[in-house]
Amino acid sequence: MPIVVTNIDRGAKQYAREFAGFGVATTHEAQGRLGLLDRRLRPIYRPVAIAGPAVTCEVAPGDNWMIHVAVEQCQPGDVLIVTPTSSCADGYFGDLLATSLKARGVQGLVIDAGVRDIATLTEMQFPVWSSAVCAQGTVKETIGNVNTSIVCAGQRIDPGDLIVADDDGVVAVRRDTAATVLENARARVANEEEKRKRFEDGELGLDIYDMRDRLAAKGLRYVDSGSDD
Amino acid sequence: MPIVVTNIDRGAKQYAREFAGFGVATTHEAQGRLGLLDRRLRPIYRPVAIAGPAVTCEVAPGDNWMIHVAVEQCQPGDVLIVTPTSSCADGYFGDLLATSLKARGVQGLVIDAGVRDIATLTEMQFPVWSSAVCAQGTVKETIGNVNTSIVCAGQRIDPGDLIVADDDGVVAVRRDTAATVLENARARVANEEEKRKRFEDGELGLDIYDMRDRLAAKGLRYVDSGSDD
Amino acid sequence: MPIVVTNIDRGAKQYAREFAGFGVATTHEAQGRLGLLDRRLRPIYRPVAIAGPAVTCEVAPGDNWMIHVAVEQCQPGDVLIVTPTSSCADGYFGDLLATSLKARGVQGLVIDAGVRDIATLTEMQFPVWSSAVCAQGTVKETIGNVNTSIVCAGQRIDPGDLIVADDDGVVAVRRDTAATVLENARARVANEEEKRKRFEDGELGLDIYDMRDRLAAKGLRYVDSGSDD
Amino acid sequence: MPIVVTNIDRGAKQYAREFAGFGVATTHEAQGRLGLLDRRLRPIYRPVAIAGPAVTCEVAPGDNWMIHVAVEQCQPGDVLIVTPTSSCADGYFGDLLATSLKARGVQGLVIDAGVRDIATLTEMQFPVWSSAVCAQGTVKETIGNVNTSIVCAGQRIDPGDLIVADDDGVVAVRRDTAATVLENARARVANEEEKRKRFEDGELGLDIYDMRDRLAAKGLRYVDSGSDD
Amino acid sequence: MPIVVTNIDRGAKQYAREFAGFGVATTHEAQGRLGLLDRRLRPIYRPVAIAGPAVTCEVAPGDNWMIHVAVEQCQPGDVLIVTPTSSCADGYFGDLLATSLKARGVQGLVIDAGVRDIATLTEMQFPVWSSAVCAQGTVKETIGNVNTSIVCAGQRIDPGDLIVADDDGVVAVRRDTAATVLENARARVANEEEKRKRFEDGELGLDIYDMRDRLAAKGLRYVDSGSDD
Amino acid sequence: MPIVVTNIDRGAKQYAREFAGFGVATTHEAQGRLGLLDRRLRPIYRPVAIAGPAVTCEVAPGDNWMIHVAVEQCQPGDVLIVTPTSSCADGYFGDLLATSLKARGVQGLVIDAGVRDIATLTEMQFPVWSSAVCAQGTVKETIGNVNTSIVCAGQRIDPGDLIVADDDGVVAVRRDTAATVLENARARVANEEEKRKRFEDGELGLDIYDMRDRLAAKGLRYVDSGSDD
Repeated sequence: MPIVVTNIDRGAKQYAREFAGFGVATTHEAQGRLGLLDRRLRPIYRPVAIAGPAVTCEVAPGDNWMIHVAVEQCQPGDVLIVTPTSSCADGYFGDLLATSLKARGVQGLVIDAGVRDIATLTEMQFPVWSSAVCAQGTVKETIGNVNTSIVCAGQRIDPGDLIVADDDGVVAVRRDTAATVLENARARVANEEEKRKRFEDGELGLDIYDMRDRLAAKGLRYVDSGSDD
Repeated sequence: MPIVVTNIDRGAKQYAREFAGFGVATTHEAQGRLGLLDRRLRPIYRPVAIAGPAVTCEVAPGDNWMIHVAVEQCQPGDVLIVTPTSSCADGYFGDLLATSLKARGVQGLVIDAGVRDIATLTEMQFPVWSSAVCAQGTVKETIGNVNTSIVCAGQRIDPGDLIVADDDGVVAVRRDTAATVLENARARVANEEEKRKRFEDGELGLDIYDMRDRLAAKGLRYVDSGSDD
Repeated sequence: MPIVVTNIDRGAKQYAREFAGFGVATTHEAQGRLGLLDRRLRPIYRPVAIAGPAVTCEVAPGDNWMIHVAVEQCQPGDVLIVTPTSSCADGYFGDLLATSLKARGVQGLVIDAGVRDIATLTEMQFPVWSSAVCAQGTVKETIGNVNTSIVCAGQRIDPGDLIVADDDGVVAVRRDTAATVLENARARVANEEEKRKRFEDGELGLDIYDMRDRLAAKGLRYVDSGSDD
Repeated sequence: MPIVVTNIDRGAKQYAREFAGFGVATTHEAQGRLGLLDRRLRPIYRPVAIAGPAVTCEVAPGDNWMIHVAVEQCQPGDVLIVTPTSSCADGYFGDLLATSLKARGVQGLVIDAGVRDIATLTEMQFPVWSSAVCAQGTVKETIGNVNTSIVCAGQRIDPGDLIVADDDGVVAVRRDTAATVLENARARVANEEEKRKRFEDGELGLDIYDMRDRLAAKGLRYVDSGSDD
Repeated sequence: MPIVVTNIDRGAKQYAREFAGFGVATTHEAQGRLGLLDRRLRPIYRPVAIAGPAVTCEVAPGDNWMIHVAVEQCQPGDVLIVTPTSSCADGYFGDLLATSLKARGVQGLVIDAGVRDIATLTEMQFPVWSSAVCAQGTVKETIGNVNTSIVCAGQRIDPGDLIVADDDGVVAVRRDTAATVLENARARVANEEEKRKRFEDGELGLDIYDMRDRLAAKGLRYVDSGSDD
Repeated sequence: MPIVVTNIDRGAKQYAREFAGFGVATTHEAQGRLGLLDRRLRPIYRPVAIAGPAVTCEVAPGDNWMIHVAVEQCQPGDVLIVTPTSSCADGYFGDLLATSLKARGVQGLVIDAGVRDIATLTEMQFPVWSSAVCAQGTVKETIGNVNTSIVCAGQRIDPGDLIVADDDGVVAVRRDTAATVLENARARVANEEEKRKRFEDGELGLDIYDMRDRLAAKGLRYVDSGSDD
């Protein structure tokens, strides 16, 4: 039988703000290219960037009942992440649920299904990443799990894992590795800053990364367009 | 042989402005979740919201000739709705046709095919919902019906039916039920306003909708994350 | 073995600015509806319009090494066009490569694959047309050709061909026909200007293009909705 | 409220067997290229060809309850045609329902959704055209209409319309035009027989259809590959 | 760093043969509609039905190196299940790897990517479920995990979980619940056998499942087509 | 203006039979992983394998006129390859055209669009690779090129290039490299035969290809499932 797990571990929340600043691509690289949710999840408006602990929610196809249950489990700073138990594009979420989540201080919604009222959601600046926009409503008949381990858009998410989402998509950082991944991200960003300046000055990646010898070793040849080669 | 039906019944036009204010999701709910066009129809810019009586138009794949015929049948406040007789993503519609429709006071275009010149259409603020953006032009060889009953993006549309379109998509309201649907929509919106205030105040859907007993009856259990359950 | 061709012919560059003004739909029509890349290529922000000589680049799936090689071959005004040797949606391109291209005066990127860092790219106003947005990074293991003849999104592109890209998509103009196509485009635009004014004045396409007789000859009939026909 | 219409008109049933022999492509042509359902409907095994009067059925997403209601309305020779009220790929239909339909003499099922147990259905030789194969089951909570006018895979179908289905897909013939369409189909087939013999003898379509002059008039030129043209 | 886990628990193997007989739809129902992999996984030939303990394998996009590593971990009766770390349709697997797996007694392959040599695989009767058929080969550059917990086609799979696959698709049964699920499956099948006989005798689901009262209570009405209702 | 090029060079025809025996995957590898057409091209029946010189044909969307023109250019052993100038799934080709091609000794059709009459085509054993099956017919209004250089399903094809097609898809071999590619293919097949025997005898790819040291160097570790690692 479905359960709702209360009082999940939000220990990784302390790192959320910094991850939001780094964004999805950097975070994904910093944890060894793991945890990226399928690119079918797109933000309903841009630009946008958030990060926070996951409250997970499973819903039946065409049935959004458990989202109401999940709302109660959300705390300020959380990100609600919803996955249907079988593929569905119906509009599970609209402006009333967004109002409720916003009142609780939730940062945003990630859902591998459809949403509606996106004009109002945009006006409210309540960020949503979804795999569809669809006005088709849902029923309230079937119960499911809240705050159990789920798979959403191809990635396993445990409650309390950090969800980082921006214009590029959504990545999950496992709760127990968040501190290490953050260290990597910081180092990566520092390194990129230095690189960016060199690129701005017109230096080439070929030289910055010392690629020329390795390219030649692989056999790459340069040929003038006017030659008979 | 194809026909053009003139002088269609625009009796439902009187309700259009109010439906535009309510939007697609509310309208769709208010008529019992009927009439929603497939979500592949997306607006070329946002936000946008219109409603008006349908002028219907059938076109051959890759052939936009009948749109010119349909323009003449349009009156101020109408929405032109175009369906190809076999699936096609070519760019049937661009800025010249939009200029013509705008000059006649048409509110917008819904087309289950491609459009082009979307930068200009956006600048003109002429709203279009389409299933594709594509610069590929069309020919003018084949005639078809205007203002007959059509199927567009999975829904039957009769001329004079109300078309309501916004950021969420497109819904059709049958001409003869428009007054009733509008009543339902008004009631729904009034009810939602009251709910919205309660959500803003932090009340939960679980309580507003009295869901707790029914959830328990279905067997939903709450488990503390620290428990051994 | 892969080659990099240097000193490609940029003779068509002189026409680029004017093509950018005309845009993709007009250019495509002006060269007889040839050269349109598949509509899966979409700009990451709008509105946007560019044109310039193509620097072509082939990349292996999930491997962006050759983009670094291609950057060195780019000159001010160029458009970099990248095609994977097998279908791939990974994020080949981000803000560092964009910084490098911008430093060299490159106008934009067209890539039949994924890109990332689109918030930064938008902020930088570095235009990109891609078939996906995806934070998944790539490796640097495999070499490929730069400035050879390629197929990108269904069209053959030779280095130095003009790439015209805007909100409607991307079209390629063959280097040796660019002057002629430009003539056609100018004539087309002049003609459209005159037409636009007539449309604005409420004249119908049926009359502007003298369609009524031809429609009748095809058998189109007009029927009043109140008739028994 | 949903209704079940009983005792529908099956007057067109008399033409079914002959339509099944002619097949979908011929039937579609014979009625002026109208009535073809979207090509996403594919048979679960091949070869197969049926025709019969439609019993129509609307189902909620993920809910197959009304199929049980529709079975009772089916008579020998009928084709059951099912459409979900919003897009869904779940497996609505399996071997038990097929056993029930077969026991009633139903010829086959057309469904714009998923089916399962396709190994058994194939073994039973109970033909099904569906838009998906999926083992995900459905619930029985929501009622809907049986034998009302529906839209399925882009076509309007009234109860009693003839459904013709084979390896190429599915086409609907409106009840009241079935006799005329059959006449056209017979003429078409007779004409094709004669053509087929000429093609078998090596005669070209260019000559059989007298195309050469018209092609030349359009400007088609023949050029020897060895020429300098 | 990636690891290969050896000597995984194959305790559920004893149930495999019986699950293969029951098939995917029954197994999926018997475990409460959990564990179904996305329907994009299709068998390369039909009919086919297998079940066995999972050996899991992660591969980089366009890189099949780890499949060779996984082969060594396979034992007679196993099912190899492969997931790319980012979406890829390349042909990771062909007749040589199939020969190797067959020599080790492996029952089949499930892969959320492409395969090739399907004519030979069919001839060998080595069953494969894949999300694509594609002749494009892969490289051998990147290492990854074998026999760790993975997500494949939307489902979490642990090594030793039972994989059941047939014409309907693929479902995973968690190792530690396999005995219970099998009990449910047996009961379900026994129940279905009895139902099938009643359906064969022409009894209706409406009566077998006692649905008539509940339908009436929901408001379903029967209307004769000739009535004025 | 469109042209038909006659008397194309069929010098590579001598290699066709041997390529057909080797198949698509081997041929693709043998020419350095070049020339593979998009995997959306699928055979209408299996197993099947052909090879022959290309006769190329461009068609307008929804218009199959030029196929009739192309038939006359076909000779025994040729493969007809057809590409629409903008994406289209209509049924361009059916049993009459197949009869005509078969009468001329043509080996098969490759078309990046739809076909129909596939039951008859299968019965005739006339092989077709297409991107769709669709009963929707086409018109005969627009002329196009025959035997010019085209792009089909993402690959450039010149007339006389060898088309190799089987259950895995379609690959093109450029006319002037066919002899070299065939040499590579022979060597590859001989090498694979030897490997296949070793795989059949239970030898592992890890050993046959000497992979163990390289895997260890990359950092791959083996861990027993029972360990605490």
